[in-house]
Amino acid sequence: MPENRNLPRLREQDWPLVDRSQTPRYADVATFMRTRRMPIGCGLDIALVGVPYDFGSNVRPGARLGPAAVREASRILRRFNPVTKVDPFSLVNVADVGDAAVNAHEALKSIDLIQVTFEEIHAAGAWPLSVGGDHTIPLPILRVIARDKPLGVVQFDAHSDTLDEVHGSKINHATTWRRAVEEGLVDPKRMIQIGLRGSQLGEDDTAYGHSVGMRVITIDEYEELGRTKVMEEIGRIVGDGPTYVSFDIDGLDAASAIGTGVPEIGGLSPRDAQVIIRSLTGREIIGADICEVAPMYDVTGHTQLVAANLMFELLCVMAKAKARQG
Amino acid sequence: MPENRNLPRLREQDWPLVDRSQTPRYADVATFMRTRRMPIGCGLDIALVGVPYDFGSNVRPGARLGPAAVREASRILRRFNPVTKVDPFSLVNVADVGDAAVNAHEALKSIDLIQVTFEEIHAAGAWPLSVGGDHTIPLPILRVIARDKPLGVVQFDAHSDTLDEVHGSKINHATTWRRAVEEGLVDPKRMIQIGLRGSQLGEDDTAYGHSVGMRVITIDEYEELGRTKVMEEIGRIVGDGPTYVSFDIDGLDAASAIGTGVPEIGGLSPRDAQVIIRSLTGREIIGADICEVAPMYDVTGHTQLVAANLMFELLCVMAKAKARQG
Amino acid sequence: MPENRNLPRLREQDWPLVDRSQTPRYADVATFMRTRRMPIGCGLDIALVGVPYDFGSNVRPGARLGPAAVREASRILRRFNPVTKVDPFSLVNVADVGDAAVNAHEALKSIDLIQVTFEEIHAAGAWPLSVGGDHTIPLPILRVIARDKPLGVVQFDAHSDTLDEVHGSKINHATTWRRAVEEGLVDPKRMIQIGLRGSQLGEDDTAYGHSVGMRVITIDEYEELGRTKVMEEIGRIVGDGPTYVSFDIDGLDAASAIGTGVPEIGGLSPRDAQVIIRSLTGREIIGADICEVAPMYDVTGHTQLVAANLMFELLCVMAKAKARQG
Amino acid sequence: MPENRNLPRLREQDWPLVDRSQTPRYADVATFMRTRRMPIGCGLDIALVGVPYDFGSNVRPGARLGPAAVREASRILRRFNPVTKVDPFSLVNVADVGDAAVNAHEALKSIDLIQVTFEEIHAAGAWPLSVGGDHTIPLPILRVIARDKPLGVVQFDAHSDTLDEVHGSKINHATTWRRAVEEGLVDPKRMIQIGLRGSQLGEDDTAYGHSVGMRVITIDEYEELGRTKVMEEIGRIVGDGPTYVSFDIDGLDAASAIGTGVPEIGGLSPRDAQVIIRSLTGREIIGADICEVAPMYDVTGHTQLVAANLMFELLCVMAKAKARQG
Amino acid sequence: MPENRNLPRLREQDWPLVDRSQTPRYADVATFMRTRRMPIGCGLDIALVGVPYDFGSNVRPGARLGPAAVREASRILRRFNPVTKVDPFSLVNVADVGDAAVNAHEALKSIDLIQVTFEEIHAAGAWPLSVGGDHTIPLPILRVIARDKPLGVVQFDAHSDTLDEVHGSKINHATTWRRAVEEGLVDPKRMIQIGLRGSQLGEDDTAYGHSVGMRVITIDEYEELGRTKVMEEIGRIVGDGPTYVSFDIDGLDAASAIGTGVPEIGGLSPRDAQVIIRSLTGREIIGADICEVAPMYDVTGHTQLVAANLMFELLCVMAKAKARQG
Amino acid sequence: MPENRNLPRLREQDWPLVDRSQTPRYADVATFMRTRRMPIGCGLDIALVGVPYDFGSNVRPGARLGPAAVREASRILRRFNPVTKVDPFSLVNVADVGDAAVNAHEALKSIDLIQVTFEEIHAAGAWPLSVGGDHTIPLPILRVIARDKPLGVVQFDAHSDTLDEVHGSKINHATTWRRAVEEGLVDPKRMIQIGLRGSQLGEDDTAYGHSVGMRVITIDEYEELGRTKVMEEIGRIVGDGPTYVSFDIDGLDAASAIGTGVPEIGGLSPRDAQVIIRSLTGREIIGADICEVAPMYDVTGHTQLVAANLMFELLCVMAKAKARQG
Repeated sequence: MPENRNLPRLREQDWPLVDRSQTPRYADVATFMRTRRMPIGCGLDIALVGVPYDFGSNVRPGARLGPAAVREASRILRRFNPVTKVDPFSLVNVADVGDAAVNAHEALKSIDLIQVTFEEIHAAGAWPLSVGGDHTIPLPILRVIARDKPLGVVQFDAHSDTLDEVHGSKINHATTWRRAVEEGLVDPKRMIQIGLRGSQLGEDDTAYGHSVGMRVITIDEYEELGRTKVMEEIGRIVGDGPTYVSFDIDGLDAASAIGTGVPEIGGLSPRDAQVIIRSLTGREIIGADICEVAPMYDVTGHTQLVAANLMFELLCVMAKAKARQG
Repeated sequence: MPENRNLPRLREQDWPLVDRSQTPRYADVATFMRTRRMPIGCGLDIALVGVPYDFGSNVRPGARLGPAAVREASRILRRFNPVTKVDPFSLVNVADVGDAAVNAHEALKSIDLIQVTFEEIHAAGAWPLSVGGDHTIPLPILRVIARDKPLGVVQFDAHSDTLDEVHGSKINHATTWRRAVEEGLVDPKRMIQIGLRGSQLGEDDTAYGHSVGMRVITIDEYEELGRTKVMEEIGRIVGDGPTYVSFDIDGLDAASAIGTGVPEIGGLSPRDAQVIIRSLTGREIIGADICEVAPMYDVTGHTQLVAANLMFELLCVMAKAKARQG
Repeated sequence: MPENRNLPRLREQDWPLVDRSQTPRYADVATFMRTRRMPIGCGLDIALVGVPYDFGSNVRPGARLGPAAVREASRILRRFNPVTKVDPFSLVNVADVGDAAVNAHEALKSIDLIQVTFEEIHAAGAWPLSVGGDHTIPLPILRVIARDKPLGVVQFDAHSDTLDEVHGSKINHATTWRRAVEEGLVDPKRMIQIGLRGSQLGEDDTAYGHSVGMRVITIDEYEELGRTKVMEEIGRIVGDGPTYVSFDIDGLDAASAIGTGVPEIGGLSPRDAQVIIRSLTGREIIGADICEVAPMYDVTGHTQLVAANLMFELLCVMAKAKARQG
Repeated sequence: MPENRNLPRLREQDWPLVDRSQTPRYADVATFMRTRRMPIGCGLDIALVGVPYDFGSNVRPGARLGPAAVREASRILRRFNPVTKVDPFSLVNVADVGDAAVNAHEALKSIDLIQVTFEEIHAAGAWPLSVGGDHTIPLPILRVIARDKPLGVVQFDAHSDTLDEVHGSKINHATTWRRAVEEGLVDPKRMIQIGLRGSQLGEDDTAYGHSVGMRVITIDEYEELGRTKVMEEIGRIVGDGPTYVSFDIDGLDAASAIGTGVPEIGGLSPRDAQVIIRSLTGREIIGADICEVAPMYDVTGHTQLVAANLMFELLCVMAKAKARQG
Repeated sequence: MPENRNLPRLREQDWPLVDRSQTPRYADVATFMRTRRMPIGCGLDIALVGVPYDFGSNVRPGARLGPAAVREASRILRRFNPVTKVDPFSLVNVADVGDAAVNAHEALKSIDLIQVTFEEIHAAGAWPLSVGGDHTIPLPILRVIARDKPLGVVQFDAHSDTLDEVHGSKINHATTWRRAVEEGLVDPKRMIQIGLRGSQLGEDDTAYGHSVGMRVITIDEYEELGRTKVMEEIGRIVGDGPTYVSFDIDGLDAASAIGTGVPEIGGLSPRDAQVIIRSLTGREIIGADICEVAPMYDVTGHTQLVAANLMFELLCVMAKAKARQG
Repeated sequence: MPENRNLPRLREQDWPLVDRSQTPRYADVATFMRTRRMPIGCGLDIALVGVPYDFGSNVRPGARLGPAAVREASRILRRFNPVTKVDPFSLVNVADVGDAAVNAHEALKSIDLIQVTFEEIHAAGAWPLSVGGDHTIPLPILRVIARDKPLGVVQFDAHSDTLDEVHGSKINHATTWRRAVEEGLVDPKRMIQIGLRGSQLGEDDTAYGHSVGMRVITIDEYEELGRTKVMEEIGRIVGDGPTYVSFDIDGLDAASAIGTGVPEIGGLSPRDAQVIIRSLTGREIIGADICEVAPMYDVTGHTQLVAANLMFELLCVMAKAKARQG
């Protein structure tokens, strides 16, 4: 996004939120949650950023169109969270910084370009809340924000994404967390996977996570424990340290997430996701993403609506953490 | 509907239900639950009526097309309720009286015209079961049927609809219940709201209801209490007095109600709604509506199917009450 | 439709058209072109009737839902034809008489039931304008209205529908016109087929028509002659005698008729169809149908919109002929 | 499928599964779960077979297109069941044998042709796992595999399908189980129906099942008992004898099964279905079907995805039983 | 858009177009043709502006969502017009200024607010290229830009939009041009309507235009004259004076414009529209709009794609005119 | 497709076409035009082959799902071409050989794998008729079949696809023909491009073709010349030498080709394409492809239907050429 470089330093009041008392929600350019599209270097606390990358998918493509769809769906959101009593826009400075740079043809070149964008965001002191793109994208993000110290991770997902390689590829949406552990970006002891299920390539699909000490909660264990105990378990695992939340939309039941590359039946409900994310309020959530929304398979728009709502929940949690940090 | 004025007085047998043993459900003109399209003044007990009005929505329009869609979806229904053992068509005289009059351009003129139609229904001694239209429409309905005495209300909804004004407008789908209380049409002590949730404009969105003594059950409290206790609570609140049921389809989870102007995730299930409505059997339900079905966003037809089924449940409850009353 | 039998004789003014100056087009029960749903025996000149039958299709089913879809789509129509200057509703008495009786499981039983309905219409002195249903339905219709004398026929279609049998079946949507000729219902010398094209089962698919003297205009000949000459040819073939128009919607290019069982590319445009039908003004068109609209494949609603418009054009032509006849 | 008759006897290795390490899931011809399309007589243990028949439906047609849709949706499946630890493809020889023969026009002729196909499968020693088609198809299947001895049955369904006749028809999707009991194909004492609900034609819709001793679990009783107790009840009813599982997709809540002829709200979740089917592991499940998937109403593809996943669960259970019997 | 008022004066290079060699077309926030979202007062030559208003429609609502949809669809456009050899972005300063202010509930208040936005654009010296919104919106636009002198108009439309009133309303999408003539905003002698067709409310629907001297070209005359002669006629009528182009998308055949409130079959093709608009190159086109795109009825996205392309053609014509003027 | 290697040599009668008199078109596994799925090495004359590759697209992805969609759509086709009187299945041995091998993650590795598949087809003496995949795929195909001698090419397309590079990539769907000329696979003097149009990146998009002597017919010249003269021009250019036909579906007007990555309005009609392809009968067409069908954007199925029909036309032309050659 080099076009932003020459901009004058802007004060927040120069770029206010759209005035909600004047502008109907259907009006004007679609940005994430109707924030302003701003350049990265403007004193942001939290940067809402799209990552339109889907070369990491080996089934149905299309998550590259996810950021545009979630922007559109997020128009419907209002500003106040009645459960956690958080109004993120009054706590911190939030804006839509556009999409990370990508290359339209080469996968690894894109991974590098994505990293560059997050370097800029990180350098500007902002925490990233990203919308993918496929589930490869936590890797270049973590390469920036976890460079100094491995992070805890809360992963919502149907699939463990800890394979070693797929069709000869080491970096794709099914290998992300193995790479992240190997590169020291994630502390596997402070990582928890929630919602795993679905037919597998073989018996070992989830073995890596177990082997390095991740807490792996399949949908069966989730049901057995109940949501409340799972939330306690999340707290126990990630503790008070800096933590990243990665939400693969296919962690949700296909009834609420058909608009994705590899939907799986029998998963979490959006209500589950809302309540669990809210339970993270007070923890140090310094970054988050929602991945794998592929709008061409989402003909009712339901999946992108869910994603937009969960993005709002993640923003509330991050805003609280950022505001506390000052 | 002045076209009906000159019709001869009709006996019920002149206008039987479509003969279900002869006519497949997909055949013939679509009316609500395959009843006959009849004029209002024909000795009806319950009038099924559409209210094709959506000027009260300030987000996505389209609920004006709700009546047509629910009529089509309701073809699939049969006549007997196996849970409550009610066959409404054998208990009372039911027909589709068409749609309330509306003006295609002016909001307030439409509100007045709608009221005129319900005056006719009321004058003819029929109880109205309405399909909206947006959630403004209970106001003109209650102005007729609650004129003499404030009613109890069971409201299913994601949103409280008790704001004072929106963009300068006092009468729209977000202010209905405040107006109704102010006009003395609703007894707030006998009113209960179920399923409230979703991001809010601010902290006060639901404050009015609390301030006048409504029983407000958010989705969080709903989950905490459990459905059975909520049903007891409904009974406690509305008691044995005359009661109106207003079902904003967005009270349901977006997984079952994407076809609406402002869908919200994390809500009631259609099963919840069925069971709760059935629990009203025996109470004096003298009117009801289902609002905010906007079929252009309902590409699978699921939302309109749900609405048609809930309309049937409401009809069973009303038929029982009407039959008892004689 | 025996439910109609006991109705008092109704004067036209008792059942006026919906008052277009009051009721928006989206309001009230969907009938064909917003006419009233009336019983057959009420002094009608032209009966608009659905025939929800699709056992005659051997590819994609669904035309049984055609009448409901065309009713809904026809809401958008107004009353005056600016090209032919015909207002059919002021010329003749027109109403929607509902759907022909069918049996939901047995093909031949349905064919007989359909015929019964058209006997009633015919006995009442009304001319039928039908919406199918698959392209089998002209057979039971012609068995009534062409009983006394074979009719001329203008057939719009991609397929000749003159096979002898399909999978052992003699009465289905691919054999209609052979049966009709064999039964003496159609004068093949006064019959013209327009728009034939598409891959064939073999070389002989269209041979029967040629063999009995039908005028067969493939899309290639259509293009070669040009629309004007084709219209002259139609006039030459059908002349001044009583004529039936049968419009299989797949006669149109798939770009305007994807909502059908066997769409074919490279066909007539809706404009072609409009102009040709209008050119029949002044001829003795005593019956017509539009067949093979299958709305589940018509996700944009375009095909049903086209069908509704062509139904209006056919009504204008029939109304002119009926009015002249007195 | 007489075209297969002259094929040489094939060894399994000549027809391996598609090599999953080489071929992406979106590639090549769509067969059930990416097995090879093989002729029946090749030493198969379990035959995956489509039954493209829908003359038994009297509402919305289209289940004839179910097999094609489920084949396409099943691409996404992998080979290993992480819950039951079953890899069916390593346990038994499985292939897609194409579709049962049907007649495109005559219902009863089709029922006979379907039976012929299943005779071939049965004669070859294979157990059938079928995809309908409407819910008439268990009848011709059971006429083959239950000829010698009545089977136990686990039926997932919203509707009891035990009427005596519909519109004069004795063999259709609403009468299947009454016919099957009358013909001695099913032991009603070993039959259990799960998920019944929805409006009924009258009070007696489910009476037949009760009268012959079936265990009928409505959705209300299901909720009351809880899933675990229902699974115990299933075990108690079907015991260790040979059992057939019939899954009408409308047994599921319409939120996960809108793509069917008669969707019903308030039903089982896909998760319920998965867990219950898995609980059958170890029982003698010698045949199964999934019926009533009508893809033209399934615009998101969700219903067919659910069906494909449940087919996989059924395969795992059958493979385990077949391997044990081996 | 008062949020823009405090912005520093920006130089063009501070807000360049997205760098097309770096950013794929699917990336970043959707603006009209991937221009930057800029405040009005920044030295723009041509302002791309949405007008999300649809209270003027009396049939199917939804054009308020048109601007968002056309923004998204316009991503696909590139910058150079190979037929007219115009690169509008190199000729003039173009940006997306967001949407005109509207009131979400009151029609006439919205009309006034829209006018305020266009006053700002006009005061800043920019020419407006607007995307509606329904076809009422030319009225508030012309009230600004034609205040000093009536303009010539080229109107593409199926409907004349010259009625006197609809349901008592004087200002709506069917009365626009009568009002504009009455208010002296349009010189009817320099106005031409192209593509009129469709059933009419009565014989007089188009009479007003004729009575005041507009050139009215129905689709029949269009076909008779041929496109080339029509283009000459347009030139003859509008001449060299300042001219406004108003494109109601329903001027196009429903095959390319189903995504609109009142689609009509048998209309212009997108090719016709492209060629005719290009023929305006060199004329003084000082403003233009594209109206009536209602994306909820445009499930394939085709209509919005067409609208985006025609918007590009209009931009090329306006850019040429603006550049010449200096 | 190494799984096919061990198969016995099969005689044609062992693998007959599905018996069309017995099997309805909706039944059984979907293959191209209902041919059998066969291994490459079985004496085929023409191999129908999918190429599920879309890394070459830099806009909307999804053409990798094209082969599956066209297989499904091609069910509807029959065997005889009534215009050219060709029954390709009786002239030559045709089968569906499945999809070319691809790698799910790496573009260039896929290009190599695709080439391997076409080497096998070529080595077996079969001519390939391919379904993409994006428009990169002619390159690996031509690297096989044009290795010995450059071919003539008839390209239907909106875009010239002769850029030098895109985003640093030399091999993608916008550079195919420049690469093919540079590699000596195409004789530019015997190449003709038809249907070029749409906004361009710059003035030079089509310059390369001109510079090397291709015959470039934009849609404007197409319209000016008329279809007949264009067909003569095609004949003049390609002459009697071996020629390849490459059909990018976006060559068609978006009204018939919305299901593609970069649809363009104002293009060829399917009728144009049919007639032009038929005019190639008698020429030496030794290979062909249809590219860029992306079914997730083709919600009505129209684009894939068009593609299937054009595939049939190409097969007829190739079968005639192959049969003549012996």
